[in-house]
Amino acid sequence: MSQEWREVSAEWQGEMEFIGKNQAGGSIQMGTTGQQPGVSPMELLLLGVAGCTGIDIVHILRKKRIKLDQFKVCVRGKRADDHPKIYTEIEIEYLFWAEELSTKAVEQAIELSEEKYCSASAMMSKSAEMRSYYRILTPGEKA
Amino acid sequence: MSQEWREVSAEWQGEMEFIGKNQAGGSIQMGTTGQQPGVSPMELLLLGVAGCTGIDIVHILRKKRIKLDQFKVCVRGKRADDHPKIYTEIEIEYLFWAEELSTKAVEQAIELSEEKYCSASAMMSKSAEMRSYYRILTPGEKA
Repeated sequence: MSQEWREVSAEWQGEMEFIGKNQAGGSIQMGTTGQQPGVSPMELLLLGVAGCTGIDIVHILRKKRIKLDQFKVCVRGKRADDHPKIYTEIEIEYLFWAEELSTKAVEQAIELSEEKYCSASAMMSKSAEMRSYYRILTPGEKA
Repeated sequence: MSQEWREVSAEWQGEMEFIGKNQAGGSIQMGTTGQQPGVSPMELLLLGVAGCTGIDIVHILRKKRIKLDQFKVCVRGKRADDHPKIYTEIEIEYLFWAEELSTKAVEQAIELSEEKYCSASAMMSKSAEMRSYYRILTPGEKA
């Protein structure tokens, strides 16, 4: 299999539970019948968006030598009423904790991720209306 | 927040690592700088497809009182060369281990998932060309 292809698998564990694995040995639990709470497949799509744009933002700010104290991306999705229950709306909220961070630097980073780099958002935006917000907080401040 | 909205978050752990969480308390590790191998955000999209169609198939076969010994869904995605590196092709391979399982029952279940129920596939298919295959194996047979 060429480098360009990624492969994952989901192995059934009985009931509605699956263990998902990638080729690097990473694993995740899907479904909620196990002892530990799992994540649902549709939540994985939102987590993919959160991680994808999150990594973009960290990369872009690091290039500008901007230091973050904490950083969190919340992603909310609203599903259609009818099958297939796709997400029709997706909201991304970026929370930055930093000593010094300009709104300009943040807005540029978010724009670059949304318009150029974020593969997950680019795929979701074909079905869902995407919106994003951000907040800049001082280190230690409650969100 | 109404019932229809799902919310997840990804919290930055330094370097390119994030911890993803849902509201039920489920968590996943994204990135590979930690001690345990994680999953990448773009792999999460493929895992979402695997889990979503996997759960559909288990539901549909259970309604028909068909018993599976083991069941696994492999999903492969090919990414574009240019940013945003979306998946342009996605292959789903279903592996069924069962004492008795007709190709007709399997094909109907896959078709129902792909054409009606699977929300993740419906979203991905807006960007990627989707293909699927299946194999029926006897219990214990090596894939």
